[in-house]
Amino acid sequence: MSRERVYLDWNATTPLRPEARAAMLAAMDLGGNASSVHAEGRAARALVERARAQVAAAVGCKPAEVVFTSGATEAAAVLTRLPVGAVEVDPTAHDCLWSQRREGQGGRALAWGYANNETGIIAEAPARDEGVPLMLDIVQAVGKVPFSFAWSGAEMAIVSAHKFGGPKGVGALIVRDGVEIAPVLTGGGQEMGRRAGTENLIGIAGMGAAAEAAARDLADGVWDRVAELRNILETALSAADHKTIFVGNDLPRLPNTLNLIAPGWKGETQVMAMDLAGYAISAGSACSSGKVRANRVLLAMGYDEGLAAQAIRVSLGPLTTEEQVLRFADVWLAQYRKALSRAA
Amino acid sequence: MSRERVYLDWNATTPLRPEARAAMLAAMDLGGNASSVHAEGRAARALVERARAQVAAAVGCKPAEVVFTSGATEAAAVLTRLPVGAVEVDPTAHDCLWSQRREGQGGRALAWGYANNETGIIAEAPARDEGVPLMLDIVQAVGKVPFSFAWSGAEMAIVSAHKFGGPKGVGALIVRDGVEIAPVLTGGGQEMGRRAGTENLIGIAGMGAAAEAAARDLADGVWDRVAELRNILETALSAADHKTIFVGNDLPRLPNTLNLIAPGWKGETQVMAMDLAGYAISAGSACSSGKVRANRVLLAMGYDEGLAAQAIRVSLGPLTTEEQVLRFADVWLAQYRKALSRAA
Repeated sequence: MSRERVYLDWNATTPLRPEARAAMLAAMDLGGNASSVHAEGRAARALVERARAQVAAAVGCKPAEVVFTSGATEAAAVLTRLPVGAVEVDPTAHDCLWSQRREGQGGRALAWGYANNETGIIAEAPARDEGVPLMLDIVQAVGKVPFSFAWSGAEMAIVSAHKFGGPKGVGALIVRDGVEIAPVLTGGGQEMGRRAGTENLIGIAGMGAAAEAAARDLADGVWDRVAELRNILETALSAADHKTIFVGNDLPRLPNTLNLIAPGWKGETQVMAMDLAGYAISAGSACSSGKVRANRVLLAMGYDEGLAAQAIRVSLGPLTTEEQVLRFADVWLAQYRKALSRAA
Repeated sequence: MSRERVYLDWNATTPLRPEARAAMLAAMDLGGNASSVHAEGRAARALVERARAQVAAAVGCKPAEVVFTSGATEAAAVLTRLPVGAVEVDPTAHDCLWSQRREGQGGRALAWGYANNETGIIAEAPARDEGVPLMLDIVQAVGKVPFSFAWSGAEMAIVSAHKFGGPKGVGALIVRDGVEIAPVLTGGGQEMGRRAGTENLIGIAGMGAAAEAAARDLADGVWDRVAELRNILETALSAADHKTIFVGNDLPRLPNTLNLIAPGWKGETQVMAMDLAGYAISAGSACSSGKVRANRVLLAMGYDEGLAAQAIRVSLGPLTTEEQVLRFADVWLAQYRKALSRAA
């Protein structure tokens, strides 16, 4: 393929930001273990604490409320350690929350997606009684839409660095000041006893730098331009009358996400056809890719199995260009026509 | 301080190997999520599988037996999911295993340190009945002494990249072919369902390259030279008659580790004095640094609380020079004399 690839799967993962790369390179030269008391250890510790402040500023919490983890999935696993009988989970939530749901007596907790990774829809706050703790999945929101943990009312939130230009394999659990948690990983005093294991120095440095850069981009209106491109794309795709359903486009949505159902054309087939044509998109979250089953998120929204299996997600980023989305629309429309004519 | 720092805390963490750095830089340019089905995802997947083969070759197992984790602590946590009543742990084991011990009915498992992180002592195989699964902590052994998982008889082993020149925040659980495990992290199909969470692409690439380089170094006899330096250091430190106890120097030991008890001089004070003088050493594992308590490992070996509190670990690496260890010995002996004269 001579033509350059077009990456429209930013909700799955994002390119590493230059700021993150630079911070990671600098961290590579620091030899120490952040838990060691000698000078090398203290230098590593200082870097971790700088990143903690950067992440806190980006999500609107206090630095001490940030617990670095290996990603959002590990952060979500703290739900397994909550001393409650039941964990009620938003049925459109990501699998890393959904897998934590449980029923039982003696107290309950809520786990809710703030911005849906497949549709981009921004949720309304769930109703809850006093004393019922809430964990918010803000993985897709951080850096794309304004969010303040301090004002959210949530007791916990989960964050993933690679969704806003940081490296994969690092994330954070945000825990409100005063909320006690039992750690998922034990056997070391790191993260003030809230997460054992030697700190991922290079990854944490990258996450901090990416968080700072992402917050600056958001403030600079970078995502307003992305939203314009997404809307241009949606208009272009809806030009031909194919009965295409644009999921959630009448609801508050992330600026970069477009989820559509193409009746008569399976989502997996769309992904493969567009991949061959040079475009990276997805049908469902990457974490569930390869699993042959209907899209749980769309089923939960009331779409039937047939329609749910014909959905794709196209997610843009700050590096996406107007030429790319228009070219994508042309190719997708042509492929859809072909698919429908084959089926006819 | 004008004089260059001397790092003698390789068991806490190691400098990043150039091979790991290069592999990580290359991985930074790969945009994809290893779970995505498109070309970008497949490129990331190929990189993960290459690293898996490199790690497998270094620890003597099959690639499919390698489950990438965020480190050894997360790998050890699989013990919490074993369907057994009791987990018996080697009393000199690292806290990440020690914290997993439990008593109860209905089947037991063993968790054992292969090479002790504080003393370097290489354990004898524990006696066990048929059907009792064994997890080995090979964190300090990988790359320093020959080890073959295939021949070890163990069902599981835990590995940490940053102990052999890889980055912090990535490791592996080795699980023998046919042994079923319940994952610690759920909510995604990664690692063949054995560990959910987007793969730490950059870290995994670094771990693979470091494992390959470490295995080559070991085969090339690099650690024989380190052992010579350690022995030179031990001889130099024992020259003055201070009743210094060299822990485990009559037992099979890692080539790089020296653990000594200096009667009359607290371990924490030794670490601080030597740090000020330009040397990084430790008193106990970094993970337990800052916790004010006697050294569990030495207590388990039969030393009393007084002696256990006067121990330090000096751990060398392939970059350590003879000049460094001789200079360390001079400074340490002088400081020890000063400490004893202050106490007198």
